[in-house]
Amino acid sequence: MNLDDLVFHPWTVQGPREVPTLIGGSGSHVFDADGRRYLDFSSQLVFTNLGHQHPRIVAAIKEQADRLCTLAPGLASDVRGEAARLIVEVAPEHLGHVLFTTGGTEAIEHAVRMARLYTGRPKVLAAYRSYHGSTSTSIHLTGDPRRWASDTGAAGAVHFFGPFLYRSAFGSRTPEEECERALAHLGQVILLEGPSTIAGLVLESVIGSSGVIVPPPGYLRGVRELCDRHGIVYIADEVMVGFCRTGAWFGVDHDGVAPDLLAFAKGVNSGYVPLGGVLVSDAIYDMFTKRPYPAGMTYSGHPLACAAAVGAITAMHEEDTAAAAARLGADVLGPALRKLAENHESVGDVRGIGGLWSLELVRDRQTKEPLVPAGASPADNAPMVAVAKACLKRGLLPLVQGNRVNVAPPLNVTDTDAAAGLAILDEALSVADAYLS
Amino acid sequence: MNLDDLVFHPWTVQGPREVPTLIGGSGSHVFDADGRRYLDFSSQLVFTNLGHQHPRIVAAIKEQADRLCTLAPGLASDVRGEAARLIVEVAPEHLGHVLFTTGGTEAIEHAVRMARLYTGRPKVLAAYRSYHGSTSTSIHLTGDPRRWASDTGAAGAVHFFGPFLYRSAFGSRTPEEECERALAHLGQVILLEGPSTIAGLVLESVIGSSGVIVPPPGYLRGVRELCDRHGIVYIADEVMVGFCRTGAWFGVDHDGVAPDLLAFAKGVNSGYVPLGGVLVSDAIYDMFTKRPYPAGMTYSGHPLACAAAVGAITAMHEEDTAAAAARLGADVLGPALRKLAENHESVGDVRGIGGLWSLELVRDRQTKEPLVPAGASPADNAPMVAVAKACLKRGLLPLVQGNRVNVAPPLNVTDTDAAAGLAILDEALSVADAYLS
Repeated sequence: MNLDDLVFHPWTVQGPREVPTLIGGSGSHVFDADGRRYLDFSSQLVFTNLGHQHPRIVAAIKEQADRLCTLAPGLASDVRGEAARLIVEVAPEHLGHVLFTTGGTEAIEHAVRMARLYTGRPKVLAAYRSYHGSTSTSIHLTGDPRRWASDTGAAGAVHFFGPFLYRSAFGSRTPEEECERALAHLGQVILLEGPSTIAGLVLESVIGSSGVIVPPPGYLRGVRELCDRHGIVYIADEVMVGFCRTGAWFGVDHDGVAPDLLAFAKGVNSGYVPLGGVLVSDAIYDMFTKRPYPAGMTYSGHPLACAAAVGAITAMHEEDTAAAAARLGADVLGPALRKLAENHESVGDVRGIGGLWSLELVRDRQTKEPLVPAGASPADNAPMVAVAKACLKRGLLPLVQGNRVNVAPPLNVTDTDAAAGLAILDEALSVADAYLS
Repeated sequence: MNLDDLVFHPWTVQGPREVPTLIGGSGSHVFDADGRRYLDFSSQLVFTNLGHQHPRIVAAIKEQADRLCTLAPGLASDVRGEAARLIVEVAPEHLGHVLFTTGGTEAIEHAVRMARLYTGRPKVLAAYRSYHGSTSTSIHLTGDPRRWASDTGAAGAVHFFGPFLYRSAFGSRTPEEECERALAHLGQVILLEGPSTIAGLVLESVIGSSGVIVPPPGYLRGVRELCDRHGIVYIADEVMVGFCRTGAWFGVDHDGVAPDLLAFAKGVNSGYVPLGGVLVSDAIYDMFTKRPYPAGMTYSGHPLACAAAVGAITAMHEEDTAAAAARLGADVLGPALRKLAENHESVGDVRGIGGLWSLELVRDRQTKEPLVPAGASPADNAPMVAVAKACLKRGLLPLVQGNRVNVAPPLNVTDTDAAAGLAILDEALSVADAYLS
């Protein structure tokens, strides 16, 4: 019997799976028991920012495992404090404290709770085309089809349109126009919903799994100004893009913006041990010096997870991972993916920044009809499954989401490995082309 | 600067803390940098069921860290499958698959989603005096004051009274009476809410942090029958009591009951790496072989966490932890705590099973007025803080919740250590007695 059949698998129909069983990894590769190697162009789910088995992180975990694996949050831990210090040090200004969670969705849940308690208001704004997690508040804030099955319509979530030039909701023709109109739209939503009813606004600094949508310069600054004007808590969701994925420590850094709360996970320790958290502004922290914060988690500030974060952030400083990611996007992935798009009729758009890119596949470049519809049934999704299989067959782990092939290798991927992966992608895209009439 | 001051702490007022900084541990003890040792009568937050630095679990973590720290859920992992096998093997019948999460609150969130999708119904029943977690669905199902600050009244949660002889909601005088009346009450709640509106019923098999309330024999069987009669999914919350805490693998085992979904965390790997999950009945699993399960998590089935579970469950078999916990309760903790109660006027009730006990402190044994009120403000809570400090000063880590001093040492605590801890508790209870007029 295949023991994988005893596992209930997220996001899929249950039953035996045709996926490789991986037992080891190194850098940008993982391998199975027969020694078959796969090049990872997904960073798993965009979290192994430093690749597999980075010696600094592995050593940090093993050293902490020898000392003290676990400790409740009510007791102080040296390694938890050190992780907090390293995170605050690279964070945007005025974010002086860290609430640790076990992952991104819990970070969003706690950030929203803080925003509601801080403002005394009920509602939260979030973007269409966004993903914030699977627990109740997070999935209700999510603005893509993954919300539909879990939507009970009852979380005080209000959705707005963010900037997205390729499928502009505002008829824009330039990034400047899109930025201006998206901000005007957001301003109207706030006024018509009622500023006094809105606790917070949650926004991925670069939209991740819902489209890899990079905001035009000035948009996040505009969001910050609207939040300031109306007393709304600005919650940056940096779960996917934080910790160097975009070529800066945080996505908000590109626009020189500091949010009030910043949710992180994934890249903080490359996912070697489950960890997430919320960076808390000094103003919100100050409120909770006067009243208790009324929530918690068993594994908040888990020593083994924090040790992995200390190892990962230290390595990111040593290797200047932010600069490496910026170069990866500007010199390697960006140019190569644009060239791929020229050769494949199925590619409607190429978007990205740093180590996070997307090829959006369409049936027709003029109509921009997606190659598979939003929230596609397994049957409708066949073309994307075929592309994914073509990659896997050639030894490449792809990241296929909706009608998009995302490209998100470890940020320390070598140029040789990047070229090898792009060559496989070139072949796999021919499979997508074949679905065009 | 104390780096602990950079951490935003759960469940408390922020600011410098008077708690020890712990850097190591062994068995039932942890210690600080000066070598000061503390005996752990809390198992942290009732999760180090095998104590600190158990060699089997540490070895399993280090071995897996050397192989492959992390892997996305979309790829198969040998160690994830092995963990699922070991968990299914000890689970109640017809629970054949495991959805892995990072902890208890995510397990509850996913179980409730499954119940809603399986039944197509909106509401969920949960007990007053219960705790189910801090994310939105879980905190709304929670039936104690920890819910209040986060309650938006919008999660479809309906609360009922479970059996609790010491403070019976039904005027009962015997466990049999309490069992019968509590089941009749639950039957009425179901009929008056409308069975066709109720997706699931969530119940801790022994109420944990909200009171350590052991259900009378037959109650869980009665709940199972009511759920069967009305097509309601029975979700057992075994986050705190699963994996031998009560002297059996699971709390439901004491009543010979199999739920439809069983949420676990904590004891599954003694919290050495964040891990939780949901055991899924064959009937519910079967539905998701026909349609996709529409949710997931980045760290579902995390290899390092699963390796720790393999180590912990293997050790539990080798050491017969279930039998050890049963003996601990019947021969050591139960008799000693009842004796303590005789000597301390502040103890109103002694309750527990296996390795999970509680002393409920009252101002008056006749009126049963709690020593501090439910949801006490920090000022009102002074007597319980004083008791906790008295323990800590004497080198004992206590578990104080509400007006209760819970006793939950590692299940492999030695009789000598147990006796030492009980002696400290004896002294600390005098502090509580002093608050009685």
